[in-house]
Amino acid sequence: MTRIAPLDPPARLLMGPGPISAYPSVLRAMSSPLVGQYDPFMTSAMGEVQALYREVWATSNDATLLVDGTSRAGIEAAIVSLVRPGDRVLVPVFGRFGHLLAEIAERALAEVHTIEVEWGQVVPVSLIEEAIVRVKPTLLALVQGDTSTTMNQPLDEIGALCATHGVLFYSDATASLGGNAFEADAWGLDAATAGLQKCLGGPSGSSPITLSDRAVEVIRSRRRVEAGIREESDESASDFIRTNYFDLGMILDYWGPRRLNHHTEATSMLYAARECAAVLLNEGRTAVIERHRVAGAAMLAGVQGLGLEVFGDVAHKMNNVVAVVIPDGVPGDAARQAMLDDFGIEIGTSFGPLHGRVWRIGTMGYNARRDTVLTTLAALESVLRRFGASVPAGGGVEAAADVFRGAAA
Amino acid sequence: MTRIAPLDPPARLLMGPGPISAYPSVLRAMSSPLVGQYDPFMTSAMGEVQALYREVWATSNDATLLVDGTSRAGIEAAIVSLVRPGDRVLVPVFGRFGHLLAEIAERALAEVHTIEVEWGQVVPVSLIEEAIVRVKPTLLALVQGDTSTTMNQPLDEIGALCATHGVLFYSDATASLGGNAFEADAWGLDAATAGLQKCLGGPSGSSPITLSDRAVEVIRSRRRVEAGIREESDESASDFIRTNYFDLGMILDYWGPRRLNHHTEATSMLYAARECAAVLLNEGRTAVIERHRVAGAAMLAGVQGLGLEVFGDVAHKMNNVVAVVIPDGVPGDAARQAMLDDFGIEIGTSFGPLHGRVWRIGTMGYNARRDTVLTTLAALESVLRRFGASVPAGGGVEAAADVFRGAAA
Repeated sequence: MTRIAPLDPPARLLMGPGPISAYPSVLRAMSSPLVGQYDPFMTSAMGEVQALYREVWATSNDATLLVDGTSRAGIEAAIVSLVRPGDRVLVPVFGRFGHLLAEIAERALAEVHTIEVEWGQVVPVSLIEEAIVRVKPTLLALVQGDTSTTMNQPLDEIGALCATHGVLFYSDATASLGGNAFEADAWGLDAATAGLQKCLGGPSGSSPITLSDRAVEVIRSRRRVEAGIREESDESASDFIRTNYFDLGMILDYWGPRRLNHHTEATSMLYAARECAAVLLNEGRTAVIERHRVAGAAMLAGVQGLGLEVFGDVAHKMNNVVAVVIPDGVPGDAARQAMLDDFGIEIGTSFGPLHGRVWRIGTMGYNARRDTVLTTLAALESVLRRFGASVPAGGGVEAAADVFRGAAA
Repeated sequence: MTRIAPLDPPARLLMGPGPISAYPSVLRAMSSPLVGQYDPFMTSAMGEVQALYREVWATSNDATLLVDGTSRAGIEAAIVSLVRPGDRVLVPVFGRFGHLLAEIAERALAEVHTIEVEWGQVVPVSLIEEAIVRVKPTLLALVQGDTSTTMNQPLDEIGALCATHGVLFYSDATASLGGNAFEADAWGLDAATAGLQKCLGGPSGSSPITLSDRAVEVIRSRRRVEAGIREESDESASDFIRTNYFDLGMILDYWGPRRLNHHTEATSMLYAARECAAVLLNEGRTAVIERHRVAGAAMLAGVQGLGLEVFGDVAHKMNNVVAVVIPDGVPGDAARQAMLDDFGIEIGTSFGPLHGRVWRIGTMGYNARRDTVLTTLAALESVLRRFGASVPAGGGVEAAADVFRGAAA
């Protein structure tokens, strides 16, 4: 007798701020059979993943790989590997995830300086420059897309600024990569990390990372091979990285030609990450970003077409998520529940100062599509009306359809 | 035009020390559609995983959950959450993974004391007791099964010892759990961690962990909720855990009734972990361990039947892996390559003092079976003969088949 039944998740259309419904081919890739960790197929798949993610990140960085864990695993690996205790770290904060970067740097015993702007805004470059001059940080840690506010921080001028002042430049592109422009080399990034569960259209659990040669040099200077596999020629730096799992030096040695054993690579997640990149590059990086732009513009027009107000500086909104002000009198959580129960559609709640004030609706990865946008808007209209809001009949679907028609023309 | 072809791994029978071929149903589970992280299905799946792993660990610990990362992510989470900088940690070392525990504790700035025995032996309880009395550690960190030597450290008397001396008792059961007895409560464990990629028959990338109430108390005393989601009532301990990702206090808050957002749970890996436990518990925990015992005994008899010598104290060998001394004159790596190329069978190489001296052959999870054992032995016989070793024709297969016949009788 089988006591525990097979897993049987309900059908969901995930239109929140992520995770979102994965590309079907990514789900299929994860059910591929495993191979050994030093199997020629495995090491060649690791090499292929590196090459594919160089294209995704728009970089020629040799040190382009995956950290085995969720997106914040990548963030922590980057920060603890680049920052020594006592180093100054500057974190411009424009939403929850800026606080996270500061938090992680604090736990790494850095001297953390933050500058904050109001939620719903991005940080002016001039403010960042002023703070760099004042703080003289070792590292600038800056979120690109913060799903808590939907803002997309412009990064294109920051790298030059950091180079001028001798500052390492790290960005967390978890929420934005693949759905918005990101140019690691052209923008002068020293480190960038992401996750699969947003615009890359995969599950959470693997964190793509890329590191400039300058970043690798810092990491190499802190090198320590772990006891048990250390050889006599492996000297340890006195300021070695204070974590084994996130020691990017050892992770690089595992991914590099020495193939020095560290963790056992999470094979199925590597398969997923590979397929996420393959989907993106087969469709074309620019084409995928454009698809996100159009779907995001359509969703924005749609919610506005329903008479809803949008939170934040729309000119700096990420393509892939919009924060919609919950109309007066509509119970936000009950309405989300009705979306889920009656239509199988998930939209998001929010954090901190926006908790209970906005819903977050995503259009990312596999779900950056016409049918998903129109379906979500039709369902939202129905739910809003049920909760007593006055909404123009068909106003959302029509406005969104217009955007798609315009983009196709 | 599709530039990047779908993933197409070769057929492999993984008979090394892990990772091994996953159960087919585990692979299927991973291709299940995703749901949102607060979807009722997801939170109930998380609850179900907790309940299933309580049975796997043989514990009533409420704090039984997954750490998102490979098995060493679980190890690091346990150690850094339980150990404050300067705390004394005692690590008995009987193979590579003891060195790893010591390494992780050192990086957490603990004062680490090791006692070592020769590779191929387990550590006598008296030696551990003597060291506890001498060192007075906060934590005893002890590997159960060390794949580097195949030894299975007896743990059943250690918990009482630790309780007497007020020491927290942590064990890394990555290589052993599911294929050898493990009794978290009966043996007095305060913390134990594992991975899916050995006897549990899944992919690497998720680390089951269980924590006693005493361990949770230590972790709670170091509580700090991260900035960005911290509320006024959330006070931070001054000796907070020096990592965000591995802060088990926050991970417990995410898995617990407060559902406080930390990482985004790696949904597909959670599905895999759930199915690994379901396979084990549907077959029966005792039955699965017995299946590992029989397959391991058969493989042992088989390699001995081929006239090969076995490394280490066979009385304390794990059920699921055997270290076979490479016969004089046989090139170890070329023979392994022939196993892979001609038969699609992977057997393992080894680390440190055993490098080039032994092969490691596993019989675990899905591959703890009669057909896999006999096939591996037939292939090994052929390869050994090709490399000039004198082996009794059919000696391996026959000896192993006898063991299976005896077990079935």
